[in-house]
Amino acid sequence: MRVSKLVARTLREDPKDAPLRSHNLLLRGGYILQVAAGIYTLMPLAKRVAQKIERIIREEMNRIEGQEITMPVVMPRELWDEAGRYEAVGPEMLRFRDRNGQDMLLGMTHEEPVVQAARAHITSYRQLPVMMYQIQTKFRDEARSRGGLIRVREFTMKDAYSFHTTHEDMIEYYDRCHAAYGRIFRRAGLRDFVDVESDTGMMGGGMSHEFMFLTDVGEDTLFLCGKCGYRANREVARFAFTPADGIAAGPLEKVATPGKKTIEEVSEFLGVGAADTAKAVLYVHGKSDFVFVLIRGDFEVNETKLAKILGKGELRPAQDEEIRALGAVPGYASPVGLDATKFTLLVDETVLRSRNLVTGANEEGFHVRNFNADRDLKGGRAVELATPREGDACATCGGPLRVSRGIEIGNIFQLGTKYSAPMRCEFLDADGKSRPMIMGCYGIGVGRLLASVVEESNDAYGPIWPISIAPYEVHVCVLDAQKGGVGEAAAGLVEKLEAAGVEVLVDDRNEKAGVQFADADLFGVPLRLILSPRNLAQGMVEFKFRGQKASEMWPVDEVPARLAEVISREKSKYLD
Amino acid sequence: MRVSKLVARTLREDPKDAPLRSHNLLLRGGYILQVAAGIYTLMPLAKRVAQKIERIIREEMNRIEGQEITMPVVMPRELWDEAGRYEAVGPEMLRFRDRNGQDMLLGMTHEEPVVQAARAHITSYRQLPVMMYQIQTKFRDEARSRGGLIRVREFTMKDAYSFHTTHEDMIEYYDRCHAAYGRIFRRAGLRDFVDVESDTGMMGGGMSHEFMFLTDVGEDTLFLCGKCGYRANREVARFAFTPADGIAAGPLEKVATPGKKTIEEVSEFLGVGAADTAKAVLYVHGKSDFVFVLIRGDFEVNETKLAKILGKGELRPAQDEEIRALGAVPGYASPVGLDATKFTLLVDETVLRSRNLVTGANEEGFHVRNFNADRDLKGGRAVELATPREGDACATCGGPLRVSRGIEIGNIFQLGTKYSAPMRCEFLDADGKSRPMIMGCYGIGVGRLLASVVEESNDAYGPIWPISIAPYEVHVCVLDAQKGGVGEAAAGLVEKLEAAGVEVLVDDRNEKAGVQFADADLFGVPLRLILSPRNLAQGMVEFKFRGQKASEMWPVDEVPARLAEVISREKSKYLD
Repeated sequence: MRVSKLVARTLREDPKDAPLRSHNLLLRGGYILQVAAGIYTLMPLAKRVAQKIERIIREEMNRIEGQEITMPVVMPRELWDEAGRYEAVGPEMLRFRDRNGQDMLLGMTHEEPVVQAARAHITSYRQLPVMMYQIQTKFRDEARSRGGLIRVREFTMKDAYSFHTTHEDMIEYYDRCHAAYGRIFRRAGLRDFVDVESDTGMMGGGMSHEFMFLTDVGEDTLFLCGKCGYRANREVARFAFTPADGIAAGPLEKVATPGKKTIEEVSEFLGVGAADTAKAVLYVHGKSDFVFVLIRGDFEVNETKLAKILGKGELRPAQDEEIRALGAVPGYASPVGLDATKFTLLVDETVLRSRNLVTGANEEGFHVRNFNADRDLKGGRAVELATPREGDACATCGGPLRVSRGIEIGNIFQLGTKYSAPMRCEFLDADGKSRPMIMGCYGIGVGRLLASVVEESNDAYGPIWPISIAPYEVHVCVLDAQKGGVGEAAAGLVEKLEAAGVEVLVDDRNEKAGVQFADADLFGVPLRLILSPRNLAQGMVEFKFRGQKASEMWPVDEVPARLAEVISREKSKYLD
Repeated sequence: MRVSKLVARTLREDPKDAPLRSHNLLLRGGYILQVAAGIYTLMPLAKRVAQKIERIIREEMNRIEGQEITMPVVMPRELWDEAGRYEAVGPEMLRFRDRNGQDMLLGMTHEEPVVQAARAHITSYRQLPVMMYQIQTKFRDEARSRGGLIRVREFTMKDAYSFHTTHEDMIEYYDRCHAAYGRIFRRAGLRDFVDVESDTGMMGGGMSHEFMFLTDVGEDTLFLCGKCGYRANREVARFAFTPADGIAAGPLEKVATPGKKTIEEVSEFLGVGAADTAKAVLYVHGKSDFVFVLIRGDFEVNETKLAKILGKGELRPAQDEEIRALGAVPGYASPVGLDATKFTLLVDETVLRSRNLVTGANEEGFHVRNFNADRDLKGGRAVELATPREGDACATCGGPLRVSRGIEIGNIFQLGTKYSAPMRCEFLDADGKSRPMIMGCYGIGVGRLLASVVEESNDAYGPIWPISIAPYEVHVCVLDAQKGGVGEAAAGLVEKLEAAGVEVLVDDRNEKAGVQFADADLFGVPLRLILSPRNLAQGMVEFKFRGQKASEMWPVDEVPARLAEVISREKSKYLD
């Protein structure tokens, strides 16, 4: 491919509203073009990278016996009603009516149609296990998309679904897919990623894991134990709480705390630590159910866990008027002395297992000291809703938890019979008995993986593509093509390389070295050859790696052979 | 791949509501699964065929220097307003609001985003010509989908767009793409197809061609001249009308034709031919513009041409009350004696160049004889709106036109500046002057091509896939696997073949020959090996072609080599 014809206009300036490194570089290199919020055209360079990523994914999915299919983008409501998700999923699922007045939706995940396919085509245990996958366009109507390809509305996803006769068989396959995911990310050249336990979210089912690219700009918070390897998303992370054993309960006493409403204000005013306080957090669940969560002042409520405890229904923080309506006083609220029939009371272990806390007195300007939940509260359900903090003890081994941030690049779910049971996706077992299939499902976002690789692998001048997914393998800069036979030498060399199957991008423009090098850096091709009149006069071509300053001089005649050797060596780094 | 695990349930019975052969066989072979009207899941076998078709398309598009991109499925109204198509396109374009209240649409063609990409990335004549293409999901909200993959609502399409500095350059590229299309269809194994001149429809622009698979079940009517090669879709087909020269005009006279309203009734009653009559066809265009078309009784009005003459606005036949409101009498209508200011009068050449016709008298129960438009009509615009008939003379060479039916499998358009001008997609020419790019566009429906190949290549038992797009190259039937070492021999053979890169489907089920052969026929794999205890005892394996009765016996050891030879020979038939 010639740079003069490549549809990729590079930008020297930073584009507006693209603070994320990958977003900035993908715009500056002419890889992507925004069509609407969170909706992009992949220009030729990005398309080539995406196709290489897709090829790696395909190879690994086929390696674990996946059968590729294509399910529709547009689906009918009826199908989604079968497992109740048309109603259950929020506004991120785009719904519309077709010209015949039928309710339709744009797929953001494909459990329903794949279950339809399985129940239509699979009848016997002899046909199982089976895995079907697709690489396909999906749409998620995010209210706020951001970060270029990191959080978009329309995206290409590989989604895979496995079907099994038993839970054990599903687990075994889940582990194989887990391993395949590691191979995919390594082959795509991503280095710093981990798998973490995760929430199953709208998918439902049992256990699930997310694959996270570790980066400070990630939206997810992760807790990692360096000692035993426990890793979990904030949404499900557990830790070992250290109880206050052997401390006697003091007498409950009211203290004046005029104008002190926040934990910080109250603890400073009373000369105690945040860990010596209990804070009340009030929520509204569903239409109008009030939920009182009592948690120690130095911890935060994990709302994902809370939502799971409460079940179906929207969850939101209560407003001051709602708090007052319960008889509580905003800033001085606690369950103490309230009518417990008006709300659900959840008491976190951080409060239950601490002694002599300061909490609200439900009276303007007053708190109480020496609050002890087991003594001072009636009713209430014991829960574990506290989010761990950096350094908290690992629930598995007691080692200190480390906090990281990450971008989710893949996920795997043990679905069980969540879809197969209501949709009657059944098989006949060896005894002729009909049973629902046991399912797993497995996703990877292609564009997000592409952007994550850029986020991890770049320098001040542009992306540095791993050769396994680079848009081209070699970038040939041709300086002063008119002089000293450089143009002819370059043409001959490119022809030879292409004939040998090398993917070459050649800068055939009449541009100065500075412009050519700057564009080459933005295109990020990992290997570079530079032809100039001076070097060619000595029979030499300059070779360098993208991202490295050092270069080598190669005799012209040796270029094809030496390059083949380098390509082969570089590629071998990404085999798995 | 083992048949026991392949997700493809075959049906022995004809499915309901699938009269089309390809639809019937794609359902019976487990290739496709309907999700909603005109919306299908491609199951593994169909997906493999589609991928091979896509590979052929990609190779041919790259061969004519196409750069692959991916544009979005969901697009914003603003972009489509730029060339006026958000309003202009009918209800087949699906429109909806996203969660932020923005008007969006599902793409059925992608001129707007590709022009956006071109104007953002191309600035100079030096970068032109350029062609960008994608293979992508599209949605067309057909009121009536039919025929399995022949007319669907969601489909995969290759759409390509070229950009040029001059009209001549565009024409040259158009011809290259024209040639590439021929190669694509031939490589995909389609035999009976032609290119025809066609209407540009909603695309607009200048000339266009459709590629038609010729089949009696096609929805399009085509006129083909066997003498000079003229070929056109009914919508644009021209012919040479033979005028009635040298006949003197007779006196206009009113004749009673009580109760005779249709051309058949009138001509029979008066003892004349349909060619001796002129019929009036009344339309309403736009909100309430009346259009009177006068055409000879033995011809039909080409409404596509009529719509083009009239320009923007809906076109529909007028109702009887509307005809009466103009002063005309339904069944006895003609423009004779009417107030010509109330309507647009279009007189077809078939009337203008005929003599002494019978036409309506605008009086219940009466017609006139010896109507001669040049004498008896005032005003009126001469038009050529008649649709040719089988045997009419070719407009180019006078040879007889033959009528065929066809399914459109591809189309190419000379768009000119229809999109680039309003969207200001401009380049700087060598003189530094800004000019709109000249465009062409080029589409192929992947699923429709797949179905067309089945429609053309099948027998009573199933599809007969060309090896170039077959889901697998070889189907291995294993009969009585438990006896005489057949199972082991088959496993060994399959391993050898797969190691050599052959795509093998092996029937490892414990099924009788009849069941295995019936399924093999439905899977349609072009080459077949049959292992049985009897043949194996003699060291032989049976080989046959799908669709042929004759078979050969091959010594077991020679199978890999002989098969490689057959595969290579068969594949060479589809090279181009």
